[in-house]
Amino acid sequence: MTSSPAGVPRVAILMGSDSDLPVMAEAASRLEKFGIGSEMEVMSAHRSPERVHDYVKGAPERGIRIFIVGAGAAAHLGGVVASLTTLPVIAVPLAATSLSGLDALLATVQMPAGVPVATMALDKAGAANAAVFAAEVLALSDADIAAKLAVHKHDLARSVEEKNARLKEKLASGSR
Amino acid sequence: MTSSPAGVPRVAILMGSDSDLPVMAEAASRLEKFGIGSEMEVMSAHRSPERVHDYVKGAPERGIRIFIVGAGAAAHLGGVVASLTTLPVIAVPLAATSLSGLDALLATVQMPAGVPVATMALDKAGAANAAVFAAEVLALSDADIAAKLAVHKHDLARSVEEKNARLKEKLASGSR
Amino acid sequence: MTSSPAGVPRVAILMGSDSDLPVMAEAASRLEKFGIGSEMEVMSAHRSPERVHDYVKGAPERGIRIFIVGAGAAAHLGGVVASLTTLPVIAVPLAATSLSGLDALLATVQMPAGVPVATMALDKAGAANAAVFAAEVLALSDADIAAKLAVHKHDLARSVEEKNARLKEKLASGSR
Amino acid sequence: MTSSPAGVPRVAILMGSDSDLPVMAEAASRLEKFGIGSEMEVMSAHRSPERVHDYVKGAPERGIRIFIVGAGAAAHLGGVVASLTTLPVIAVPLAATSLSGLDALLATVQMPAGVPVATMALDKAGAANAAVFAAEVLALSDADIAAKLAVHKHDLARSVEEKNARLKEKLASGSR
Amino acid sequence: MTSSPAGVPRVAILMGSDSDLPVMAEAASRLEKFGIGSEMEVMSAHRSPERVHDYVKGAPERGIRIFIVGAGAAAHLGGVVASLTTLPVIAVPLAATSLSGLDALLATVQMPAGVPVATMALDKAGAANAAVFAAEVLALSDADIAAKLAVHKHDLARSVEEKNARLKEKLASGSR
Amino acid sequence: MTSSPAGVPRVAILMGSDSDLPVMAEAASRLEKFGIGSEMEVMSAHRSPERVHDYVKGAPERGIRIFIVGAGAAAHLGGVVASLTTLPVIAVPLAATSLSGLDALLATVQMPAGVPVATMALDKAGAANAAVFAAEVLALSDADIAAKLAVHKHDLARSVEEKNARLKEKLASGSR
Amino acid sequence: MTSSPAGVPRVAILMGSDSDLPVMAEAASRLEKFGIGSEMEVMSAHRSPERVHDYVKGAPERGIRIFIVGAGAAAHLGGVVASLTTLPVIAVPLAATSLSGLDALLATVQMPAGVPVATMALDKAGAANAAVFAAEVLALSDADIAAKLAVHKHDLARSVEEKNARLKEKLASGSR
Amino acid sequence: MTSSPAGVPRVAILMGSDSDLPVMAEAASRLEKFGIGSEMEVMSAHRSPERVHDYVKGAPERGIRIFIVGAGAAAHLGGVVASLTTLPVIAVPLAATSLSGLDALLATVQMPAGVPVATMALDKAGAANAAVFAAEVLALSDADIAAKLAVHKHDLARSVEEKNARLKEKLASGSR
Repeated sequence: MTSSPAGVPRVAILMGSDSDLPVMAEAASRLEKFGIGSEMEVMSAHRSPERVHDYVKGAPERGIRIFIVGAGAAAHLGGVVASLTTLPVIAVPLAATSLSGLDALLATVQMPAGVPVATMALDKAGAANAAVFAAEVLALSDADIAAKLAVHKHDLARSVEEKNARLKEKLASGSR
Repeated sequence: MTSSPAGVPRVAILMGSDSDLPVMAEAASRLEKFGIGSEMEVMSAHRSPERVHDYVKGAPERGIRIFIVGAGAAAHLGGVVASLTTLPVIAVPLAATSLSGLDALLATVQMPAGVPVATMALDKAGAANAAVFAAEVLALSDADIAAKLAVHKHDLARSVEEKNARLKEKLASGSR
Repeated sequence: MTSSPAGVPRVAILMGSDSDLPVMAEAASRLEKFGIGSEMEVMSAHRSPERVHDYVKGAPERGIRIFIVGAGAAAHLGGVVASLTTLPVIAVPLAATSLSGLDALLATVQMPAGVPVATMALDKAGAANAAVFAAEVLALSDADIAAKLAVHKHDLARSVEEKNARLKEKLASGSR
Repeated sequence: MTSSPAGVPRVAILMGSDSDLPVMAEAASRLEKFGIGSEMEVMSAHRSPERVHDYVKGAPERGIRIFIVGAGAAAHLGGVVASLTTLPVIAVPLAATSLSGLDALLATVQMPAGVPVATMALDKAGAANAAVFAAEVLALSDADIAAKLAVHKHDLARSVEEKNARLKEKLASGSR
Repeated sequence: MTSSPAGVPRVAILMGSDSDLPVMAEAASRLEKFGIGSEMEVMSAHRSPERVHDYVKGAPERGIRIFIVGAGAAAHLGGVVASLTTLPVIAVPLAATSLSGLDALLATVQMPAGVPVATMALDKAGAANAAVFAAEVLALSDADIAAKLAVHKHDLARSVEEKNARLKEKLASGSR
Repeated sequence: MTSSPAGVPRVAILMGSDSDLPVMAEAASRLEKFGIGSEMEVMSAHRSPERVHDYVKGAPERGIRIFIVGAGAAAHLGGVVASLTTLPVIAVPLAATSLSGLDALLATVQMPAGVPVATMALDKAGAANAAVFAAEVLALSDADIAAKLAVHKHDLARSVEEKNARLKEKLASGSR
Repeated sequence: MTSSPAGVPRVAILMGSDSDLPVMAEAASRLEKFGIGSEMEVMSAHRSPERVHDYVKGAPERGIRIFIVGAGAAAHLGGVVASLTTLPVIAVPLAATSLSGLDALLATVQMPAGVPVATMALDKAGAANAAVFAAEVLALSDADIAAKLAVHKHDLARSVEEKNARLKEKLASGSR
Repeated sequence: MTSSPAGVPRVAILMGSDSDLPVMAEAASRLEKFGIGSEMEVMSAHRSPERVHDYVKGAPERGIRIFIVGAGAAAHLGGVVASLTTLPVIAVPLAATSLSGLDALLATVQMPAGVPVATMALDKAGAANAAVFAAEVLALSDADIAAKLAVHKHDLARSVEEKNARLKEKLASGSR
């Protein structure tokens, strides 16, 4: 696989509602930083199963290599997508009910043998990590992304140092 | 709807593996007592989505009126069936992993608005109740089943009296 | 069973307090869309058991065919209603305590063999689905409702497309 | 209230099945040590609600002063008894399903304001404590029981010393 | 035991902090309605064990017959009080940490055999029920309280009817 | 990336103890079926952090492309490996304590933004899926594996049909 | 070990982000009251593992005797620090995700045999107690701190009496 | 503090029953390897509070420097000991009920500010770590123990290598 030109989406970010955008946009913007094009779509395992079927089946030929799926409650979308493809499916359980995401986490991660869904943390941290993990997967055959991941790794350490500096400032100014 | 002749299945009992038979057979045998024919099928939301799709879509014309679904872990089968039909879907979460069925329960019951799955208790009690509930649904337009449900209700109370009698015997014999 | 004239309630919606109305009204308004008359009543398994007994016992002859019950905390109302009838009982566990509805969910769904309570999702999604499920049950012998359910199914898919359109607009306008 | 003659039951021990006897017998034998007569009955909130109603309503005039109730799963029996009486109701949640008694505990303890159920620990420890608590309640107006409770309290401390002695023996003999 | 004059406290209401007053005052005001005097004290199993010891040991001779204890987090106060007395101890677990009271509930209810703590629901419902339960206990030898409990029971049912009336008004006015 | 010769390990399977082998061997044998070489190593985030550091840092140059990590209890190994590499890390939480794997699951999946760990189901299903997911990742640039995944997908559906056949046999033979 | 001069830090307080300061500052200010110098640093087990390694390895020679670690989500920092030192590590799990700190608690406390992390309560109570516990540890060889702990113990009891006084005032003024 | 002669107990290991010995003996034998004398005692926060009080108050003058406490269910013993001393208290929650130790864990760890209990993992791993942690604490002023801890740390890493060797043997012999 050669690196696709910027903007041609290699990752599909699927979510159950446009109200999930504030969380799932985190994945899109992270992918952008790695130079990985993505497209976002609303679809529902339960409300529009045909649309899911058609979208997932048609995705590979349009260049999609990885699915990132955000879903809450009885979060079946990740599993349903995984049942229809052999491309990697990464899922972000969303805390969308009074059960604080425990429902979505268990409904996502406890997949039966043979049909994996790579589960990330709940909510925004998970959406961010879905993108980083997608980059790690694509970097296996894309040196550009691999280089950007090295920078990302370095930035992580630097961001900790910046936080440490902010801590020291707060302490110096007596503002706890 | 007229009452179908005995043996013509009005209820489909679906499960993810033949190893679920000892639990789900409870539903079939209960239905039999109500004179309701059923058929049992193994299918998997994740491993054989096409089979699920075709089976569910074809079921109504063969006389199926209700689906009873047993599934464990990330139990999506109930939800997937419900996404494909407007017939009533009754689900039995199975305790199939180390999480004791909490995963299956939450993955089954927390369906989004618009696509209901009627969730029963975990395991054998749930399988039994799925059958009783199916009978209650069919009894709305089938006087035979309604009559049998009245007997069932009476039997429930009588079984408690029998248990009470056994208790008294145990106490009398000093065997605690 | 022939279809009852509009307004004659076939479904009873029971709740423990008038403060549950904002959630349980979701069930009533959904039923209305299916042309199914319902009546709402406040009663309590623990505070007014006689009232529950009398209401449930008298309901069938007034035309009630299905009970929808909303209850929180040690949510016994569904089970108590189910102990008094062989009509289908659908329950909506409510998140009414600090335990976020886990108490109501388990107290509702874990019914013993013989006395089923069809449990829906927590709160508003569950109230909506209680109505849809009631419609699915009644549609087995009511072609009007069956037709409306087909429309409902179609609307679900369309609503997802609308959400997708809104997503695309948001993305186009850069408002994440 | 004067102390009733030995054997005349002042405490009713209710359970859902004779299979609960091994656990609930712990309550009866503890009561016996306090000289408190008890009777044991199988009844079910869900399977024999009329029997529960009649038994609870008739109990006071036969001398019953306290109810001890053991129940598992969606454990409603304690709450249903409490809805029918103003006598103290003590409940023992039983671990009867794959959920390890969490279902019974929450279904028992989370009673709404106005209708208390005094909840004990799960299973055998709870059955024992239901009896001790019943003794504490009756001791408020029964000097004999109060005296026996003082002995009980002393015995508890002594049993710890005995266990400590056994520990020392085990350590001395090198048998860890 | 003869009925004590109004105002002479028969029930001690203990809590870990004056910040628990809004919840635990519910117990005091409910007791007042039953004509049962109570006193409220702040004490801590962990911060002031000597004070707890002295208070509990001295309480009986001052007329205290029942302890009501409110505690959150690792809620030990109920158990510590119960270890020092054979008077009935009723506990109200408080949701005081991010774990929503599950910590307090388990730390309160899972007492070992021999030392019961009668556990009520979490928070305000539990505080109310602690008072009602204390009344039920005292009513066993106090006809006045017994009479008031009968009224209480009647009021419970009436309050449900009032709520039902309010529901009907809301529905009539179209304000859901 | 070109396909490595059979036997040259592209996947490292790490576990905390040789006692985890029965579970994690599932991953190795699944990888073998896809023609993907793997190596298994015991190491511990807590007991041998230097060994983890050196192994992970040295792995890429030896040809390792993906880490599969099995860990129980406070399962940190996945996160620690992920902190040291930008290669994809797939983790299998193991049910190794009385908490049934809930500890390992949460300790594995709730990674902070920037350092993803792709979490699979608990125990054997998770080990199997870790291998399938690794194959899906490698298949993005390895047509051989992609072809084998297509066969795998087909086999999944066929295995369901076989289970269905077994079910029918059991039913025919009357052995429920 | 002789008592170090005031201000020379004997305790290192580590946290994953400067945003944890409001909670972890509780530890620092408590230590100050015991005359124990501390230093605060931001570092991350996952984002800056090298920094953690270098800091922990270098800490002893600079006089650090105890580590206090605050971390949320998949809270690995305590375990990672403990893997690198034989100095006592005290950890404060933080409620930083929708799972209310249950994730951090289990990820912190369930350490494997050989590598202890002394776990405190969630959030601010835990941060306070980490400091008190550190003082208890240092007091074993520092008479000054031991004396201050005796005062602390006395103050705890006195603070309860003050709360009791406030309760009595509130009750007297009728402000519940 | 100077190092006490071997055999003079510096650590008290407390447990609620001699039946806890198989778990808590792990702490004693680990302490022995560090040359730290310990004594084991059975006592109960709830059954023998006076004994706990007297033992804890008298322990310091007999040379006890640290308490290790094992307790299950509503595990109050750690907190009660901590309320009576300013010596470090280390607790091991035991999985002693159907709730798998979640009750003991929460009842132990969620201590209020001011009275710390250093909580270890559940059961045997926790008992082992309580000993290692006690050694870490005592090593701050005891060079012998510090030296033994360095060996312990080295042994941990070596034990992992041994496990790795065993893994390789198993793999070589084909015994998975």
